[in-house]
Amino acid sequence: MNFGVVTKVLGNLLLIEALILAIPLLVALLCGEPAAVAFAWSVVITAVVGAVLRLIDVNSEAQKPKANTIKAREGILIVTLGWVLASLFGALPFVFTQAVPTFADAFFESVSGLTTTGATVIDNVESLPRSILFWRSFSHWIGGMGILVFTLAVLPALGIGGMQIFKAESPGPTADKLVPRLANTAKLLYTVYLGITVLGTFVLRLSGLPIFESLTLSLGTVGTGGFSGFNNSISVLSDNVFAIWAISVLMIVSGVNFGLYYELWQRRWHVLRVNTELKWYLAIIGVSSLLIAVNVYLTSGGELLEHVRNAVFQVGSIITTTGYFSVDFNQWPAFSKGILALLMFIGGSAGSAAGGMKVIRVVTAGKLIRREINQMLHTHALVPITVNGRVVPQETVSAIAAFLLLYVAIFGGSTLLVSLAGYDLSSAAITVSATLNNVGLGLGMVGPGHSFSVFSSALKVFLSALMLLGRLELFTMLVIASPGFWKQ
Amino acid sequence: MNFGVVTKVLGNLLLIEALILAIPLLVALLCGEPAAVAFAWSVVITAVVGAVLRLIDVNSEAQKPKANTIKAREGILIVTLGWVLASLFGALPFVFTQAVPTFADAFFESVSGLTTTGATVIDNVESLPRSILFWRSFSHWIGGMGILVFTLAVLPALGIGGMQIFKAESPGPTADKLVPRLANTAKLLYTVYLGITVLGTFVLRLSGLPIFESLTLSLGTVGTGGFSGFNNSISVLSDNVFAIWAISVLMIVSGVNFGLYYELWQRRWHVLRVNTELKWYLAIIGVSSLLIAVNVYLTSGGELLEHVRNAVFQVGSIITTTGYFSVDFNQWPAFSKGILALLMFIGGSAGSAAGGMKVIRVVTAGKLIRREINQMLHTHALVPITVNGRVVPQETVSAIAAFLLLYVAIFGGSTLLVSLAGYDLSSAAITVSATLNNVGLGLGMVGPGHSFSVFSSALKVFLSALMLLGRLELFTMLVIASPGFWKQ
Repeated sequence: MNFGVVTKVLGNLLLIEALILAIPLLVALLCGEPAAVAFAWSVVITAVVGAVLRLIDVNSEAQKPKANTIKAREGILIVTLGWVLASLFGALPFVFTQAVPTFADAFFESVSGLTTTGATVIDNVESLPRSILFWRSFSHWIGGMGILVFTLAVLPALGIGGMQIFKAESPGPTADKLVPRLANTAKLLYTVYLGITVLGTFVLRLSGLPIFESLTLSLGTVGTGGFSGFNNSISVLSDNVFAIWAISVLMIVSGVNFGLYYELWQRRWHVLRVNTELKWYLAIIGVSSLLIAVNVYLTSGGELLEHVRNAVFQVGSIITTTGYFSVDFNQWPAFSKGILALLMFIGGSAGSAAGGMKVIRVVTAGKLIRREINQMLHTHALVPITVNGRVVPQETVSAIAAFLLLYVAIFGGSTLLVSLAGYDLSSAAITVSATLNNVGLGLGMVGPGHSFSVFSSALKVFLSALMLLGRLELFTMLVIASPGFWKQ
Repeated sequence: MNFGVVTKVLGNLLLIEALILAIPLLVALLCGEPAAVAFAWSVVITAVVGAVLRLIDVNSEAQKPKANTIKAREGILIVTLGWVLASLFGALPFVFTQAVPTFADAFFESVSGLTTTGATVIDNVESLPRSILFWRSFSHWIGGMGILVFTLAVLPALGIGGMQIFKAESPGPTADKLVPRLANTAKLLYTVYLGITVLGTFVLRLSGLPIFESLTLSLGTVGTGGFSGFNNSISVLSDNVFAIWAISVLMIVSGVNFGLYYELWQRRWHVLRVNTELKWYLAIIGVSSLLIAVNVYLTSGGELLEHVRNAVFQVGSIITTTGYFSVDFNQWPAFSKGILALLMFIGGSAGSAAGGMKVIRVVTAGKLIRREINQMLHTHALVPITVNGRVVPQETVSAIAAFLLLYVAIFGGSTLLVSLAGYDLSSAAITVSATLNNVGLGLGMVGPGHSFSVFSSALKVFLSALMLLGRLELFTMLVIASPGFWKQ
């Protein structure tokens, strides 16, 4: 393990975070908020620690590696520690402004922001200074950016959880040469990401929202986060039909693989036709919305079109793991709530900032099951599975199956642990779903209108770990816990 | 498809069932119960239909196959239709005696018996004639027998859900020659099965139970069923320490692969040392019992040893999917109930009459996950997974992963469907768990002291299908629904 390169990269990361924190500092200054002092201190502390990490050399002369390349092992450590460190320092403004007085709570809020979860411990967000509201939404956007590169470049290279499924389409770097192509991929993705955010802000402004709300909502939506500046998510906008539809479309657009937008930019229109994940993603959204709209209409009457609007919004919000709500869907019938609960696990497309298992993995699992059924009567040889018209290697199918089974196991085990804190099994299960899947919103006690402030500090730290675990696609964090990781 | 051989075998099956039904008829005659008439009619109707099926020849002269061999396709159809037909005719005594007046309910009770589930629609079983009580328990025993051959001989031959994992140990017949070796395997297994039942009856008699109760409880336990002759399962025995321990041991013994007992009979003691599933099965029981006992002790006080006894009993009852209860574990803390809920899915050992996913599949999935984590940093080639000290072929691992993922998907989808009938998600989920896993007992509204009588007839039929689906290891039933099955 080359610890020298790890500390150096982490130092760079904190220096970048200091720059990022300077933006809400600017917002505080522009709005003349006393929070500016808190942000200034956060910038200084983050920058100093970053510079120290950057400059110290933890390698002894003897250990010094010949070249400063980042191998898979270091890459995994950097990604995991990077997310934890960024969350720790991102929590400083919350503590310093007293917006979230205790550090465990502030850490939860910061992890929730950077992992684009959007679960909040703040009961009255409307009382917060604008700079803090901006930082919450901006942390979604920054976290979402990090995830794009992580899932489209780092994961395929490492072959984590079958994410090498992208390799054929967007040729990523190999595990031994992470850096060179990464910067290139990142630049392209960030351009698309930024473009959609600007467009989103513009459209929301058109719907009549003030510019600050338009910007923060757009940041939180494109990052599939879920923090909002209102106490009841965006239910305050539920009568603004244009805004609801605009946010719905923006959420659904943000849950698509960003690599696809790049392909479209390059006028490779055929990707729309052959992309397996996109087709299923849209089909799931369509069918789920229809089922919910009809179910709610049949049980509570009212106007069908309004139910369709609410259903599309909520389905889009949950499948992309954004976590906004426009109505109190806790009041919906169990069937509709059950669909939402399943969508939390399916999640958005891989290569977006969305969480959950990812549509492509679920679809591949479906194809695996279909193969087993079809083959029962014939040979038991492994007929290949195809995605996007290309054969998926058996190792990738195996990695995807392992990922999904581990996902279910972690869900079950974590539910048990949360129940140990005195919660009934349903509440424990939905709380785990809301955090592990990075939705930040669930049913019942973590449903619309509820915050995560009720949980103990210890539980908040555990839930923070679940958010990170889900965000880093399980294996990244777990491999660090395996003894083999630390062997030379 | 050779329909001639299918109808012929199904005819034979019904003739055998007529013979089986003659045994509770004998019980009715011995006890001088009017139910004898009902059983006599059941025997006659079943025998007549069986004889007709046996004698008619559905193949036209042209279609007539050269030899009357049973291929995989026919085998699957026979197994599935066989279970449905046996349940339909097994329901007759319930209807004729008016023990369960409506046919949908009687069918549910019959499916529940033959699939060794033990979910009952009868609220007051203590009012039933002894012959009916005997038939309920006996149907568990008969169903369990069928399952032994099914899982140890038929499934490995067909390679369903990775059950070829047994092939190396108990060489089964190949798909094209189901019959010859099957009879041989069956004879050996039945000897062990019968032996344990006789021993169980004897031990229960020693604990002070009358002979009728000893026999029926032993039949229901060895078949991992769960019907009992008491209204509150066996809580009436909760103060009989010897009986509780005896039933606990009997349940746990019955959840072991019966192939292992045959190996031990042959003095191949080393199987105990190398058998992966046995080790994990016992470890899961031990750890779960300990966790529950301590959890209940810490929350409610009382005597630790008593909690250990109740915990072992309940863990044994749930993991083997028997479904007896000695105390109302609905009163236990959520953590303990959560462990029981997970055990419902893990289930007993493959090659026993227990339901659920089966320990061996869960363990193999764990090994698959561990492989993915270990391999992340190295090569992504498929390092083999070993079970019982032997390499498991990649096709088998793939089939097991597909089975488990399908299991979870069916659980989720069925929960949605049940919720559509107006039940909240928790109740729907636990009802599906209790039936799909063939436990017959869950938490809350299907927990201790509750019967399945509250559900509508339509829902009872759906739950019957789930019991069969779980019992026949999913793929068997699903392959029949695939278009490829019916192509020549």
